[in-house]
Amino acid sequence: MSRSSDALVLFANEAFYTAFGSGDYAAMDDLWAEDAPVACLHPGAAPLFDRADIMKSWQDILTSGPNGMMSQDARIVARGEVSIVVCYEVVGQGALVASNAFVEEGGRWRMVLHQAGPCPGAPSMPPGERMSTRLN
Amino acid sequence: MSRSSDALVLFANEAFYTAFGSGDYAAMDDLWAEDAPVACLHPGAAPLFDRADIMKSWQDILTSGPNGMMSQDARIVARGEVSIVVCYEVVGQGALVASNAFVEEGGRWRMVLHQAGPCPGAPSMPPGERMSTRLN
Repeated sequence: MSRSSDALVLFANEAFYTAFGSGDYAAMDDLWAEDAPVACLHPGAAPLFDRADIMKSWQDILTSGPNGMMSQDARIVARGEVSIVVCYEVVGQGALVASNAFVEEGGRWRMVLHQAGPCPGAPSMPPGERMSTRLN
Repeated sequence: MSRSSDALVLFANEAFYTAFGSGDYAAMDDLWAEDAPVACLHPGAAPLFDRADIMKSWQDILTSGPNGMMSQDARIVARGEVSIVVCYEVVGQGALVASNAFVEEGGRWRMVLHQAGPCPGAPSMPPGERMSTRLN
């Protein structure tokens, strides 16, 4: 798995937060894998394994429009046919931490796993570095 | 990735909960990958990316001895060089849900990611089926 693949995986991770933060359901739907098994573990909720159920959950979350959710300090934890990114999710003054996994489907990286949970906070970073990414 | 590899991945996932539930720090230490990047996201805590920090956290958790934590309804969400298992974590009357990822290192599957978070509860299952596993 090359560094250029790392960049594409991190790009997919950013695309997820762009869809999430802007309330763009169509982009979110496009991002999730269609052929591979998928799982979505929203904070405090039962896990979802059915793609239709997962997309219904995102429709409910995104229906209120843009929420400003963005990622911070994304890093690739594992790379291969399945690649995993861990990042902070920053919204307002709060932060969560997430594990996001992607597989290649139709020549692009699509999401197969999202788990997010609360954490004490994201590390303080100058605003200009908030969208920066780190590679292991 | 063959079905027999699935079984080995699920075996590693069970080994994680055996170490966790029995308070076996040595087994927990043996389970985590040593060469690959690792990440551990305990509920409500900042993510840990340094193996020494992760093992220190497990030492703190396991120091009080057996806690009875066990997995339920484990299923493989993604398979490949990196394989991901999602399962319930059941302890007493409570349940969490976890994403666990493994890579092959030295001929066996070792953990590279653990994220757990609270969930409303695990599905009701007869006690005899609690340790059963499901493959996608």
